Order: sequence, then structure tokens, then C-alpha cells
Amino acid sequence: MKLTYKGKTKDVYALEDGNYLLKFKDDVTGENGVFDPGANTVGLTIEGVGRAGLRLTKHFFEILQEKEIPTHYVDANIEEATMTVKPATVFGKGLEVICRFRAVGSFLRRYGMYAEEGQPLDAFVEVTLKDDDRQDPPITEDALDMLGILTKEEYAVLKELTQKIANTVKEELAKKEIELYDIKFEFGRLADGQIVLIDEISGGNMRAYKQGEYIEPLKLEQMMLEN
Amino acid sequence: MKLTYKGKTKDVYALEDGNYLLKFKDDVTGENGVFDPGANTVGLTIEGVGRAGLRLTKHFFEILQEKEIPTHYVDANIEEATMTVKPATVFGKGLEVICRFRAVGSFLRRYGMYAEEGQPLDAFVEVTLKDDDRQDPPITEDALDMLGILTKEEYAVLKELTQKIANTVKEELAKKEIELYDIKFEFGRLADGQIVLIDEISGGNMRAYKQGEYIEPLKLEQMMLEN
Repeated sequence: MKLTYKGKTKDVYALEDGNYLLKFKDDVTGENGVFDPGANTVGLTIEGVGRAGLRLTKHFFEILQEKEIPTHYVDANIEEATMTVKPATVFGKGLEVICRFRAVGSFLRRYGMYAEEGQPLDAFVEVTLKDDDRQDPPITEDALDMLGILTKEEYAVLKELTQKIANTVKEELAKKEIELYDIKFEFGRLADGQIVLIDEISGGNMRAYKQGEYIEPLKLEQMMLEN
Repeated sequence: MKLTYKGKTKDVYALEDGNYLLKFKDDVTGENGVFDPGANTVGLTIEGVGRAGLRLTKHFFEILQEKEIPTHYVDANIEEATMTVKPATVFGKGLEVICRFRAVGSFLRRYGMYAEEGQPLDAFVEVTLKDDDRQDPPITEDALDMLGILTKEEYAVLKELTQKIANTVKEELAKKEIELYDIKFEFGRLADGQIVLIDEISGGNMRAYKQGEYIEPLKLEQMMLEN
């Protein structure tokens, strides 16, 4: 088992059968010790957050599996805080795909002239480049195509998958009377070119609220997984 | 004749027949006394720049008229530095539509991970909101539609017109062995809903180079209009 990548919130190991093992760590993104799912830096370490994130990721990936929505998921070991996944390559040097149900965060910072805080948005999809040096710039379908990152056909698949998955998560949260404001995903291509959801779906990927109050990732994971 | 708007580089007067009069001023956008067509502030005043801008605008708008590409242009009076235009309303609170033939400026600042400086781009179109407080954020077709600024059908018209007009300007510059790197336009709707080019087409709207050397707006206007 060979370490192939050290990430902000997880490490990646190559397995001998060609799959990969993701090791979930206890670091979360944020700035100055405050959690922010949109931040590019690791802000703080919370004991047990890796395992909690994996538990929620497993929960959602298995729901997606039942719905036949393609992901890189193979299986998960909660004890070890590891998830086995199929090999996938990212688009370009990595994209983040955001789906928004309410106008908050960077959407509001950009389009505040036209949107009010918290205004409902209809599963609005946007793509940003993973580029810390350039503050993850937003990018259009045309630019993705022109720069050779993603074809127009792939963009259509990506957008449809994003809305399907985001709506699935939204429905799951709604069962616990929790409202999903926005969520970010990463996608990749399998060896055969199929576009699949990769990475994770945990509290750190989304903004969730209950009765107007923001729910921290760890709390969200507890609320979602308690019976 | 009533002053209805004081802009950075021109003032707008309402005429009695329903048309408007644009008065071109000698101010150009830039920062710290350096001209920058992408800047939001008026950086310097250059004697005669208003009249020169109008002369080039008149030149291009009349070429577009011959090609039956719709604009708000009625006529121009060089002596008075004024242009008469049809009434048009902007999209939302105003958009800038950029057409790029080479990767420079904000395109490179955003997508430098995937593009090299000066790399050819195939009449790439992007839209930004006119919003000084938010540094003119880029916006996608989906967001324009969702925020009620522009329908998808109008976006298609806008994009096609942008590429047609930018290619027209590019061809005109090429006759003087000048290369167009990028150009920005504003569009509006006439009373009947038709989408037309508004504002101006002058040196201040574009980046033009001759043998790899940037040409200042005033110089560009001289080079384009000399026989």
C-alpha cells in the first residue's frame, strides 16, 4: 500500500488490485480556527471528524448506489477511517461543482446586486477551478470546453449528475427536517471514460440549516445518522 | 435637452424626439494615471480623446449598419463630440460582454493554470456584471437566466452578435496590420425587445497590438482613421 497523495482532509493510497484507499483525517477546512467549507486552508483539527465524515459519505454513496447514480465508491471501513474507491482521473487539475438551493456564500458575494441573502435558487449549478493561488475562480461551460478541461457533452452529464445527487442529499436531509442550502462535489472519469462522483459527501461539503440555524459538520453527521 | 446620466467617459442627454444624445468626454478609465480598459475608475484626462473615440465609434457603427448588424446608432457630430442613439434599456443593471482572441488580462488572471499568456482563443465570449463594488464579477448563462437578467434565447443572440461584431472589428484592424486581442461591448434592448449593440467601439474598449506592441487608444484611433 503506497501513499500517492497527501490532501487537506484525506490521504490517498494505491492498492495492489488497482483501486485506491482514501484515509479520512481529522482536519477540516477553514480560516483562523473557524470552519468554512469554502476555504482552501485547513483551519482546525477535530477529534473524530474524519470517521464521522466517512460514516456520512458511506451513507450517501450507498443511497446513490441503490439509485444507480455512478460514483467511485467500492466500500468503507469505519473503524480504520478508510474508503476503497475505483481509480478515476479528475478533469484538468480538478474542479469543484457546486449546487445551490439558497443564495449564500460566494454566490451572494458575486451576485449580491441581483440576489437577496437566503433567496431560493433552483438547484443552480456552477463550476470552479481548484486553484488555491487564484482563489478557485468560477468558470463557464464555454471556457471549460475551450481550455480542453471538459467537453460540452461531458458538461451536460456533469450538470445533470450534480442536480440528481444534490437533490438526493436534499431529500435525505429533509427527512430530519434539515434544509440543504448548498453542496459541493468533485467528479472524475473512470478508465472507460464514464463520469462519476468522487471524493466524499460529508458535513464539510455542504451548508445545512435547521430552523434557520447553521449546523456544524460534526453535528450534522450525528443528526443524520442517529435513529 | 436634459442630462439624464453622468458616466465615467460620457454623459447622456434625453432629446425631445425620444432619442438620446451621448456626449463623449476626455476621460479614460485606468488606475494611477495609467490607462486600463478593464478598470472601473477614471484614471486620466487626455485632450481630444472623446472626439477621437467618437470618430472611431462612428466608423465602426457605420460598418455594422452596412452589414445590418443591429446597434443603437442614429448619427454622430464629431465637432460637438456627440452621438445620437435610439433609446435602449440595459440587461439588469448593465453587463459587459467580452470577446477574446488572445489570453491576456482578467482571463489570464483567472485561468492562468490552463492558459499561457497570449495564447490564441477562438472568439471566446464571456459576460461580467457591471458592479464596481464587486469588481465586475463574471457570470454564466445559467446564472443570467436564473437571476432574470437575460433569457437563454437572448443569451444565444448576445453571443452570436458579440462574435460577429468582434470579428468585424478584428478584420478592420487587420487591414492596418493591427491585431485585436480582446474587446468589450455593451448591449441593450430597444423598445420592441430587439437586442442591439449600445455604447461605443473605440480604443478604450479593446486591446490592440502591432508587431507585439500594445497600441494606446488615441494612437489606435489615429492609425485606424488615417488614409
